[in-house]
Amino acid sequence: MATNVFIIGLGLIGGSLGLALRGTPYVKTVNGFDTNPKTVQQALQIGAIDAGVELAAGAAQADVIIICAPLRFYAGIIEEITPHLKPGCIVTDVGSTKQAVIQLFKQIPGNIFCIGGHPMAGAEIKGINGADRYLFENAVYVLTPGDNVPRQQVDFLSNLLSATGARIRIMPVSLHDQLVATVSHIPHLSAVALVHLTGGREEDLMMAAGGFRDTTRIASSTPELWEDIIFSNRDILLDKLDGFIAHLTDIKSALQNGDIPAMHEKLSRAKTIRDLIPRASRGLMPGFSDIICIVPDRPGIIGFLGSILDQHNINIVDIEILRVREGDGGTIRLGVPSPDDAEQAVQALLANNIKAWVK
Amino acid sequence: MATNVFIIGLGLIGGSLGLALRGTPYVKTVNGFDTNPKTVQQALQIGAIDAGVELAAGAAQADVIIICAPLRFYAGIIEEITPHLKPGCIVTDVGSTKQAVIQLFKQIPGNIFCIGGHPMAGAEIKGINGADRYLFENAVYVLTPGDNVPRQQVDFLSNLLSATGARIRIMPVSLHDQLVATVSHIPHLSAVALVHLTGGREEDLMMAAGGFRDTTRIASSTPELWEDIIFSNRDILLDKLDGFIAHLTDIKSALQNGDIPAMHEKLSRAKTIRDLIPRASRGLMPGFSDIICIVPDRPGIIGFLGSILDQHNINIVDIEILRVREGDGGTIRLGVPSPDDAEQAVQALLANNIKAWVK
Repeated sequence: MATNVFIIGLGLIGGSLGLALRGTPYVKTVNGFDTNPKTVQQALQIGAIDAGVELAAGAAQADVIIICAPLRFYAGIIEEITPHLKPGCIVTDVGSTKQAVIQLFKQIPGNIFCIGGHPMAGAEIKGINGADRYLFENAVYVLTPGDNVPRQQVDFLSNLLSATGARIRIMPVSLHDQLVATVSHIPHLSAVALVHLTGGREEDLMMAAGGFRDTTRIASSTPELWEDIIFSNRDILLDKLDGFIAHLTDIKSALQNGDIPAMHEKLSRAKTIRDLIPRASRGLMPGFSDIICIVPDRPGIIGFLGSILDQHNINIVDIEILRVREGDGGTIRLGVPSPDDAEQAVQALLANNIKAWVK
Repeated sequence: MATNVFIIGLGLIGGSLGLALRGTPYVKTVNGFDTNPKTVQQALQIGAIDAGVELAAGAAQADVIIICAPLRFYAGIIEEITPHLKPGCIVTDVGSTKQAVIQLFKQIPGNIFCIGGHPMAGAEIKGINGADRYLFENAVYVLTPGDNVPRQQVDFLSNLLSATGARIRIMPVSLHDQLVATVSHIPHLSAVALVHLTGGREEDLMMAAGGFRDTTRIASSTPELWEDIIFSNRDILLDKLDGFIAHLTDIKSALQNGDIPAMHEKLSRAKTIRDLIPRASRGLMPGFSDIICIVPDRPGIIGFLGSILDQHNINIVDIEILRVREGDGGTIRLGVPSPDDAEQAVQALLANNIKAWVK
């Protein structure tokens, strides 16, 4: 079946969806709309869309419409496209919360199938400049079908979107909104509160080592984007904030009472849970091995490391510079596919006078 | 001046200090003690110490004693070394909080100079296996001198430790303990509470994207280590926990009241502050530039990237694999010393058919 896809909003997500869907077996055409003509030009140029079209024309031709605009534009978009939608077509979106979206979708007639969507993927570069056809690879992509949507349509959209490499999960709206509150919105607000706790004093920030940086990185995100998200998930978020404060209060009590066993239980249960989270976020295969090596600082050293492993047919699947110092070298972590590869890589590096060990 | 250093406890920090201090102009000998004879052997083998000695003998010879053992062993160590200490020698440590240490140091006679120490450095590999002579490079290393310690002794220790590459900061005990509460202990407890909020349910964890992973990474640390730290900073920490909960309650109020301006202020002030934190944690030079490139997945690709930049004499100062997918390639971030280098690197990569752009 050859599907006509219409993407409304050609930013990071819309552009990446276009790149990922174009040329897959399910898709005949990807049309795109954006309020900014330059963005449409750029989307054409990078091959994210087959053609730029107006909202009415795009809606009239589409089998699947994907709204990739900010939530505050949904109402206007839905109003404009609704008269033109083909009966039996699918309307979906990519918004971060789903309760508000489902409400807006209620204005669309019942012979159109509305399925909320939320790809859990992002990138540091916003807009069409960040578009990447691999953005969704291994990412969780949640679908929240409306009550009137038959299984067949859900399966159809699910198959279509699977072509992006995403792992599709189908769940009710309320469960989705609770999960994102826990794993995304509360961590965000917690990071904001942590940063405020420093008071912005230079002394505090100067002491901020790796843990603080990691914990608060998301506090550097665009405020406007997050306001939309937070207020659209208000009720659930208020509830989860209470839950978060309750856990902090438990910890405070254990501390206040000098209750070492209670604190131990709290910390070790957290460790047990945290250790469950797979390392799959960047698409890393489970079971890959890490080695650490200490290298001199000179141009080409990373190429040199790569060529040593290449000679032994060992692929580098992950690399991280743990520390560098000017004129003196650094410590690098290399991920390789298996423990055997790690052993072999260490031998090869040692043979080249590079200090290395399996982590 | 040739100093005899005695390191008590040859774990990650003790071993790394030995490696960093041995062979520097200030240091004549580094003796070491550890309760585990195998650790002493290993320290000798990697060159972290000149000799393994008993506590009494090591103390008798030392000009500078660095206690690198867990806090609960301090009392025993201090009792054992005190009768043997040379008048005028310096005793310091590397513990994460300083109030409790200063109390213990009071048992040492006044003709010995006690200066608390806290290098803000760590590594994922614990124990002597993780020892790295560059561990302290660019790290903040706080010294909290006792009241009786003359400036000359503080300067002496400061110069000695500067040889590790650390940035020495001298401050009062109470300020240190407040700062670490804000930038280290509260973020830790916050990560623990966030993880508990998921309830450990697989569904929640499956949805955990990059933000949650980053925010909660530290919750995977050793509980025993953190219990010691937390309880040794109890009073300050109780206070800061109240402050943290107060910020969360502010955020909750803004959400509850639909007060968008208040939420905006909270989020954008957090962004402003967070953006102030320099990227210096891994010793990266300020002002370096990032490029992004999309590469095929094949053995040697990282070597190939390295060799392209090498041909143009561009040094790779940072590298991060943003995404990989099996059999299909990945997105890589490369840090280079300057914007000019970034431009040149992009041209060179494009000329080799690698999609790349300046971030």
